[in-house]
Amino acid sequence: MKLVPLGDRVVLKQLVAEETTKSGIVLPGQSKEKPQQAEVVAVGPGGVVDGKEVQMNVEEGQQVIYSKYAGTSVEVDEEEYIIVKQDDILAILK
Amino acid sequence: MKLVPLGDRVVLKQLVAEETTKSGIVLPGQSKEKPQQAEVVAVGPGGVVDGKEVQMNVEEGQQVIYSKYAGTSVEVDEEEYIIVKQDDILAILK
Amino acid sequence: MKLVPLGDRVVLKQLVAEETTKSGIVLPGQSKEKPQQAEVVAVGPGGVVDGKEVQMNVEEGQQVIYSKYAGTSVEVDEEEYIIVKQDDILAILK
Amino acid sequence: MKLVPLGDRVVLKQLVAEETTKSGIVLPGQSKEKPQQAEVVAVGPGGVVDGKEVQMNVEEGQQVIYSKYAGTSVEVDEEEYIIVKQDDILAILK
Amino acid sequence: MKLVPLGDRVVLKQLVAEETTKSGIVLPGQSKEKPQQAEVVAVGPGGVVDGKEVQMNVEEGQQVIYSKYAGTSVEVDEEEYIIVKQDDILAILK
Amino acid sequence: MKLVPLGDRVVLKQLVAEETTKSGIVLPGQSKEKPQQAEVVAVGPGGVVDGKEVQMNVEEGQQVIYSKYAGTSVEVDEEEYIIVKQDDILAILK
Amino acid sequence: MKLVPLGDRVVLKQLVAEETTKSGIVLPGQSKEKPQQAEVVAVGPGGVVDGKEVQMNVEEGQQVIYSKYAGTSVEVDEEEYIIVKQDDILAILK
Repeated sequence: MKLVPLGDRVVLKQLVAEETTKSGIVLPGQSKEKPQQAEVVAVGPGGVVDGKEVQMNVEEGQQVIYSKYAGTSVEVDEEEYIIVKQDDILAILK
Repeated sequence: MKLVPLGDRVVLKQLVAEETTKSGIVLPGQSKEKPQQAEVVAVGPGGVVDGKEVQMNVEEGQQVIYSKYAGTSVEVDEEEYIIVKQDDILAILK
Repeated sequence: MKLVPLGDRVVLKQLVAEETTKSGIVLPGQSKEKPQQAEVVAVGPGGVVDGKEVQMNVEEGQQVIYSKYAGTSVEVDEEEYIIVKQDDILAILK
Repeated sequence: MKLVPLGDRVVLKQLVAEETTKSGIVLPGQSKEKPQQAEVVAVGPGGVVDGKEVQMNVEEGQQVIYSKYAGTSVEVDEEEYIIVKQDDILAILK
Repeated sequence: MKLVPLGDRVVLKQLVAEETTKSGIVLPGQSKEKPQQAEVVAVGPGGVVDGKEVQMNVEEGQQVIYSKYAGTSVEVDEEEYIIVKQDDILAILK
Repeated sequence: MKLVPLGDRVVLKQLVAEETTKSGIVLPGQSKEKPQQAEVVAVGPGGVVDGKEVQMNVEEGQQVIYSKYAGTSVEVDEEEYIIVKQDDILAILK
Repeated sequence: MKLVPLGDRVVLKQLVAEETTKSGIVLPGQSKEKPQQAEVVAVGPGGVVDGKEVQMNVEEGQQVIYSKYAGTSVEVDEEEYIIVKQDDILAILK
């Protein structure tokens, strides 16, 4: 199943930090806090939202920093996503 | 009796998760929490809401994710519905 | 005396649920909770409300679902009414 | 002295309920609560209020229902008045 | 020194109630509460305030009723004044 | 270093009250409270602020009364300044 | 990795105060509080933000004073940044 966001909503997937040990083994990060970094999974169509024309400026696949406490967590097919308004995305990581 | 929503309101019906046991018996989900997933039952006409033109983007029968804590529960003919504003619908599940 | 609502206000009268006993006697409902279902008694003229043009979409005699906690109760000639803004009416029951 | 309300303000005077005893003596009501019923004493000119054109829809002498907790009580020449915004008047009693 | 209010601000001076004793002696009021009655001392130029055109409707020398808890007290040359927005003035006393 | 305010911001410097003793010695005020009187040090360019055209009406060197609790204190080169929005300036002292 | 701010967002880097000891050794400040002074690292494109056209007035490399409690701290490549809305920048230091 696929999440298709409405209006100026954006579906994000939080990134799991990976750590490479000295011996080369990659361990998915557990203790490292990276609560605001996520990947864009789906982008709403924008359009008139709350009476104002909104243009979408993020794209699928981009890594972004989003505002702490913003958004709603949803679980679809055992995967957890965060749905935020585009305005809660602060910056793109390049 | 039928609920006819006004303005940008949408009538939702929460989905009951089904579980298939190993023996093939389908059990309606009881303990599984799925508080934000619902089916669209009726869609308001949109139009000018709070002084702003609102266009309806959801349709009857769609499965949607809606914002936790949003909406009002109402009981009609022993069935329970949730009435939300379209803006409280975050995404469509496809 | 009659209540003539101003602007986008609507006068409602809460419905008393009736129950028919096995012997056929109709008893006005007492314990049954139906706090949000009401009949439209009078509809304001609409017009410019808070700087925005409001069009009235409900009619006298309709049964409606209104938002819990909304509105003001008033007693006129020993009858109790609820005055709400049209936006606090969620749906019409048909 | 006379209160001349500004903008969309309306000066109200709360009504004292009268009770006629069996012997025909009229007693001004004391215990009966009628906190929201009042007579319009003076009406502001309307015009642009908070950047929005406001048209006045109530008239001197009308009996109105106003919103509980709204308005400011003022005492002029030993008489008590309530000054409300027109929007705090819910309905006219006719 | 003189207070010249900006925008839609109005400078008020609270009135001290006078009481005439039976013997004809005038005593400035002390215990009598009249917290909301004041004289207009200076009126701002109005104009665009918070993006909205504001027209000033009060004049120097008028006695007004202003909203309790509104405004800021300032002391200039040992005199105390209250600076309010015109919208906090409820009515003119005539 | 110089503070150049942005938008509708104004940089203020609180005035220190001076007291002349009987012997003619001028003492900088210490106990006297004058928390809201300040001198304008720099004025922002105005322009479109929060979507609204703002015109600046105060000038460098003017003494003003500003709203208690408004503004942000900043220290530059051992001097303390207060940065307020022009709307937090209530009146000019002339 | 580089932070590319969206809309009217600005990426800041807090300045570390340096102190020169008498012997000429420069020590990075530790105890000195300078919580609101920062350098502009990246500036968003502006454009329509929340339905209002926003023009960016700060530039990379400028030292600015920003509003206490505003903004979100983010850590990228072991460096800490603050992302604020341009409106939270009070003044430029020149």
